[in-house]
Amino acid sequence: MNVESIRYASRFDGITGSAIREIFKMIAQPGMISFAGGNPSPSALPDAEAARIAGQVLREDGKRILQYGATEGYPPFVESVKAYAERAIGCALPGVLPVTGSTQAMDLLCKALIDPGDVILVEDPSFLGNLQCMRLYQAKLVPVESDDGGLKLDALEQAMAEHHPKMLYVIPNFQNPTGRTLAADRREPIAKLAAKYGVVVAEDDPYRDLRYCGETAPTIKSFDKEGWVVFLGSFSKIISPGMRVGYMSGDARILRKCTMGKQSSDLHTANLTQAIVDRFLRENLLPDHIARISASYRAQMEAMVRELDSFPSGTRYIRPEGGLFVWVELPEGLDALALLPRCVERRVAYVPGTHFYAYGGHPNTLRLNFSNSTLEQIGEGMNILRGVLEEALA
Amino acid sequence: MNVESIRYASRFDGITGSAIREIFKMIAQPGMISFAGGNPSPSALPDAEAARIAGQVLREDGKRILQYGATEGYPPFVESVKAYAERAIGCALPGVLPVTGSTQAMDLLCKALIDPGDVILVEDPSFLGNLQCMRLYQAKLVPVESDDGGLKLDALEQAMAEHHPKMLYVIPNFQNPTGRTLAADRREPIAKLAAKYGVVVAEDDPYRDLRYCGETAPTIKSFDKEGWVVFLGSFSKIISPGMRVGYMSGDARILRKCTMGKQSSDLHTANLTQAIVDRFLRENLLPDHIARISASYRAQMEAMVRELDSFPSGTRYIRPEGGLFVWVELPEGLDALALLPRCVERRVAYVPGTHFYAYGGHPNTLRLNFSNSTLEQIGEGMNILRGVLEEALA
Repeated sequence: MNVESIRYASRFDGITGSAIREIFKMIAQPGMISFAGGNPSPSALPDAEAARIAGQVLREDGKRILQYGATEGYPPFVESVKAYAERAIGCALPGVLPVTGSTQAMDLLCKALIDPGDVILVEDPSFLGNLQCMRLYQAKLVPVESDDGGLKLDALEQAMAEHHPKMLYVIPNFQNPTGRTLAADRREPIAKLAAKYGVVVAEDDPYRDLRYCGETAPTIKSFDKEGWVVFLGSFSKIISPGMRVGYMSGDARILRKCTMGKQSSDLHTANLTQAIVDRFLRENLLPDHIARISASYRAQMEAMVRELDSFPSGTRYIRPEGGLFVWVELPEGLDALALLPRCVERRVAYVPGTHFYAYGGHPNTLRLNFSNSTLEQIGEGMNILRGVLEEALA
Repeated sequence: MNVESIRYASRFDGITGSAIREIFKMIAQPGMISFAGGNPSPSALPDAEAARIAGQVLREDGKRILQYGATEGYPPFVESVKAYAERAIGCALPGVLPVTGSTQAMDLLCKALIDPGDVILVEDPSFLGNLQCMRLYQAKLVPVESDDGGLKLDALEQAMAEHHPKMLYVIPNFQNPTGRTLAADRREPIAKLAAKYGVVVAEDDPYRDLRYCGETAPTIKSFDKEGWVVFLGSFSKIISPGMRVGYMSGDARILRKCTMGKQSSDLHTANLTQAIVDRFLRENLLPDHIARISASYRAQMEAMVRELDSFPSGTRYIRPEGGLFVWVELPEGLDALALLPRCVERRVAYVPGTHFYAYGGHPNTLRLNFSNSTLEQIGEGMNILRGVLEEALA
């Protein structure tokens, strides 16, 4: 029998994964200015410190680092990340589970909670990687309306009452892809709604430390009295995405199910990468590092936004207070997906906004990343993009 | 609403994970001689080389290692592991996917193939970690009878004809937990049966390089004409389990589904641990390293087996040709699970065999690991174990 006849699991029905994949294939060309992706700047990746620390931790604790570890995490890191997370989240935490990037946190939460057909409430648009994860668990995605302050509370309560969701997925700060920040005064109400309706909130906050202006709002988790909020943290944007180290924090019983799920996902996160992040935290290298990269990212964001001001009339964008992305709405009638090949031909790339919507549509939107381009590349790339739009409108 | 009221996903129904967990809690005491677990010896963990190499790869390619990587793997490692796997497996390979420990390979295969109720054929007993993984995908496990040469071909064909399985899971060399090796002349027939009935074979071969006597048999994969065999490889037993680096290899279409599954599992395996294993392969450090640890493990295995010869009459065991485990059948009437607390009290631990059977039973069996104990610990621990058995029989 030929292997073509194989029956794959039904969770893959309708999953292609090809749109984004095609974009990343297209842009893997020399000389490309990429506003796609969400990569940190190469200058933000602390390779010299990592080299020093990697050698050091392996010399000091190599036998433990190279041996099997606990699913619950490398003990020194469990300690340091708990202290770090409690400061970041602003409350005492019953437990913290290190994960292989916060991508895995979403996978484990779905594994713990989602049966086929279960409803997950999502912002619309939202981070497409996690939408894909939810689809592979055969969740039913229900978008909740947002405005400039993020999720609208009345729409959220109505969706909870109507759809009996298992989970709400929200990126409260400098949301991916819109760059929007959830209004401070909506955070406690969301924690209360979660407890009222019995909905787990996945509060995904990878960009939290990359704030360029304004005040940091308290986390939703900090208002969580009943344990419904699970906070997903990441070191990908502030130390290194290639290390694959994140954490999830919340109710001990929920974390216990996630830990059991993780046992058969990858047994444990690599001890070495946990140990390296542990030293970054213990040596207190993060505050200066974050200050340095934030200053640089702020300048890159400002440069991109300045360029957008001279884009064709009818172009709108959201000026973010932090994070990595600027969200753009082109004049009605323009199609960001259709224009992408023309841009790529001229060596500029972005991600069409339609991919971030649970049910597509919104052809005139696109997401621009500024962290992975120099000021010069931003100037040049935005010029090219402006030119393509002007041609399309002519 | 209190979080106690949470409805977890039905895949966790009946999953406790507590038996083994309790054992490992019991044995986490100073002075314990552990024949439980499957840990490499601390002396087999190359911490000095890893420290040197980690610093080196981060200095030479740190910006790439710390950046997001491809789900398909860190390019230098993809190249070196393909060459390594082709030598190990004995045939050209259409593709190799690096994974976060071969634990993840089983997870991704189940994700790609298994719908609730789908049948997986398993050896009985088999590796309990992967049985747990299959249960979380709500597979129906159907045990296939084995004899001293491993899976019985007539029983296997009958099970394939009767149950229409999606997958066969087999550990061909020094099986976990029995230490048995699948007879050389059963390997081509298994590849043919897989193609005849359209069954994916997960050939899990983590112990392959740890052979202490006899001849290496060809892999099942090497007889695979139609692409039904997926080979799971691991560096956990020959370099380091704490690094979480393994690979899977097989038909490109099956690997593509696994790659899509991996995108939302952990995006990619940590680049740093892939880079370290890559250098181990490129510097050709493995042959000498494996020769050294095999010599030591062989002596440990011989010592354990010698002790078993003076165990109470009616005790039977399987002398393995390699790997990490000796499988023991106690005289009828003895219960390895019931005797474990008495042994632990005297500071010796093992895993009761019943946990490795898909449907339990076989109370008089147990699995002993010899790799993680010194010759002295083996002598002392086996003495204690012998004493407990003699008391139980008295």
